[in-house]
Amino acid sequence: MSAPATTGYQTLTEETVVKIIEPLRFFTGEGELRVKEIGDGNLNLVFHLTEPASGKSLIVKQALPYAKVVGESWPLSLDRARIESEALKKAAEFVPDLVPKVLYSNAELAVTVMEDLSDHTILRKGLIAGNQYPKLAEHVGTFLAQTLFHTSDFYLHPFAKKALVQSFINPDLCKITEDLVFTDPFFDHETNDFPDELRPDAEALWGDQELKREVAQLKLAFLTRAEVLVHGDLHSGSIFVTGESTKMIDPEFAYYGPAGFDHGHFFANLALSALSHNYHTKEPGARSDYQEWLFSVIRDTWHHFAEQFSELWKNKGTETYTKVPGTLNDFLQQTWTDAIGFAGCEIIRRTIGLAHVADLDSIEDQGVQIELKRRALRLGSSLIKRRNQLPDVESFIAALKGGI
Amino acid sequence: MSAPATTGYQTLTEETVVKIIEPLRFFTGEGELRVKEIGDGNLNLVFHLTEPASGKSLIVKQALPYAKVVGESWPLSLDRARIESEALKKAAEFVPDLVPKVLYSNAELAVTVMEDLSDHTILRKGLIAGNQYPKLAEHVGTFLAQTLFHTSDFYLHPFAKKALVQSFINPDLCKITEDLVFTDPFFDHETNDFPDELRPDAEALWGDQELKREVAQLKLAFLTRAEVLVHGDLHSGSIFVTGESTKMIDPEFAYYGPAGFDHGHFFANLALSALSHNYHTKEPGARSDYQEWLFSVIRDTWHHFAEQFSELWKNKGTETYTKVPGTLNDFLQQTWTDAIGFAGCEIIRRTIGLAHVADLDSIEDQGVQIELKRRALRLGSSLIKRRNQLPDVESFIAALKGGI
Repeated sequence: MSAPATTGYQTLTEETVVKIIEPLRFFTGEGELRVKEIGDGNLNLVFHLTEPASGKSLIVKQALPYAKVVGESWPLSLDRARIESEALKKAAEFVPDLVPKVLYSNAELAVTVMEDLSDHTILRKGLIAGNQYPKLAEHVGTFLAQTLFHTSDFYLHPFAKKALVQSFINPDLCKITEDLVFTDPFFDHETNDFPDELRPDAEALWGDQELKREVAQLKLAFLTRAEVLVHGDLHSGSIFVTGESTKMIDPEFAYYGPAGFDHGHFFANLALSALSHNYHTKEPGARSDYQEWLFSVIRDTWHHFAEQFSELWKNKGTETYTKVPGTLNDFLQQTWTDAIGFAGCEIIRRTIGLAHVADLDSIEDQGVQIELKRRALRLGSSLIKRRNQLPDVESFIAALKGGI
Repeated sequence: MSAPATTGYQTLTEETVVKIIEPLRFFTGEGELRVKEIGDGNLNLVFHLTEPASGKSLIVKQALPYAKVVGESWPLSLDRARIESEALKKAAEFVPDLVPKVLYSNAELAVTVMEDLSDHTILRKGLIAGNQYPKLAEHVGTFLAQTLFHTSDFYLHPFAKKALVQSFINPDLCKITEDLVFTDPFFDHETNDFPDELRPDAEALWGDQELKREVAQLKLAFLTRAEVLVHGDLHSGSIFVTGESTKMIDPEFAYYGPAGFDHGHFFANLALSALSHNYHTKEPGARSDYQEWLFSVIRDTWHHFAEQFSELWKNKGTETYTKVPGTLNDFLQQTWTDAIGFAGCEIIRRTIGLAHVADLDSIEDQGVQIELKRRALRLGSSLIKRRNQLPDVESFIAALKGGI
């Protein structure tokens, strides 16, 4: 496949995007080609191209040289487009069905051309609507086991692993996580965003030195532990679902980090969903069933992950020490404990930090919303401080049930 | 200073090396310029250039594209010359008196031109001779505190730190450590080298699954924890000393790793020296005094390190969490515990691995040598397994006294 000629970065339009995809010869050329920009304009342009005559469609995503969040705008490296497409291609080596297929990428234009997934729903929307996805846990567990194992020192030659570490050094996007997940929510910082009623709770959290000492450990792990290539932002808005299919999208935050990082964010977003479903499921009687389903997703995701990771470790582990009894368990236990801590940070930052979740923010009754957010803060704090006392998924689920 | 013109890598000779240093205008040009290659030819060429008329001299070190150890030869990246000169220059930003001054470096030729330290002695030789160096502990503690703190996330902007991580990714040299320090000595590997009398001890060690499980953790820390720019090979052969001066040399193994790594290697080599001084000090009566001095170097090095690191943390820490009570202690404690584990690995690999220490190998009485090596294996193993029960430098020294 020949690369289209490029002359430096320029913002694509609904006209110029067509030229980008022409050399791919993806469309038949019969009849009309419809082009529509469907992004929210905060970070990326997203063009949806459809050819009704052939029924074919695809997505062209272009990174913008800035980020806009809640009216603020700051410059952001275009290199994130390269990282996103490289991460998608790396994942496709092991789980091609669990990521959108990349048809073409161009680092200079910060463009990724990929499979159209318009038939999928954003998981967060589905969870807010109270829908269940029977394959979700298996798919996420598989995605994590396959991508984390195959990018680790347990599998890769040390030279190959270090080359990947180097190519996924991702300063701009990591800085966002360092600030917005691990730092700002734990201090009285201007980026924080919460209603006045939560200020006493936020202030209690900021004054909790024991909590902050633990968060310091988690932040240091994020800053220093280059264990595996993580997605880096695996919340329920980064997962596309149907009843049969699951696709992890938008890995622009991908970097080499602690193996429990993605689990933590996924679990946190399921916990926030469970919290929100105390009050706004479709049928009052279905409430606890839906929460139980959410907990079962956490349980099954971990079990699918641990089983597959263990199989890979035993069958494909090249690192000598993978053969030593106990080493697999040590790694899984550390990954688990980290995941609980990262989940706690994610729950807190989604409650009082800059970026919220619709699961809670869309609750119309303000009193209810604030009470749930109060519980979220307590839950997140407890998970961080008690993560070493929650040694397995059942104790974690018990803590969630007690905390929401 | 203008760079000499280069056309790719070529091995220097006593003739061509003169052309390399001409543009530096270091020598006066009066009288004879003496050139002598003084390297051992295993890894590097080392040219000593002296101008008797002016009394000036310098060293030109050139990396060879291979390594030779005990008759074996394998290719080795020339990039290590760049890493060595960059690491020396980075250290000179903070401790210019504790490293050789780099006058010029050329990555293409794998050449570093530096200060001549012929008036210094290799520390290992001095230790074998039973000499004491009153400034050693203060200098090594200062070197470690300054270089580790100033290359950490506690001080550097995250972008600057990640750029340094990237530039010090050092696959070839790290692979040597991964194999020869953390792996081969713990398995029946062909690179191991020990007398037949030690085979039962080596086999006991290879069969100790608890030990190997702990070494797996230490190796994983070495592979993944990009905390600070470590020297990477700070044994007593990498330190030049006089009564007043200490210079850390040869940082070609430098990379971003765990903060306790260099401490561990330095302490291990002092412990091996103390072990060797059970039997071959100059005067029988001076034996325990010299060992006590060696232990005092360990104690004082750690205290100098911890005090200066703590001062830097308090006064120059830019990372928000450096202000949270307890975080400094957590980091120092982790660094300490790691150091003990790394020391244990170094003691074992210097006893049955490929690269030995002259401190033990030069003991002429074979029975004594083997008995001491047996103790070294037990000591190393015990340090690795008990590192969490040795919380401070006094308990570590007590363990050394009990083990040697």
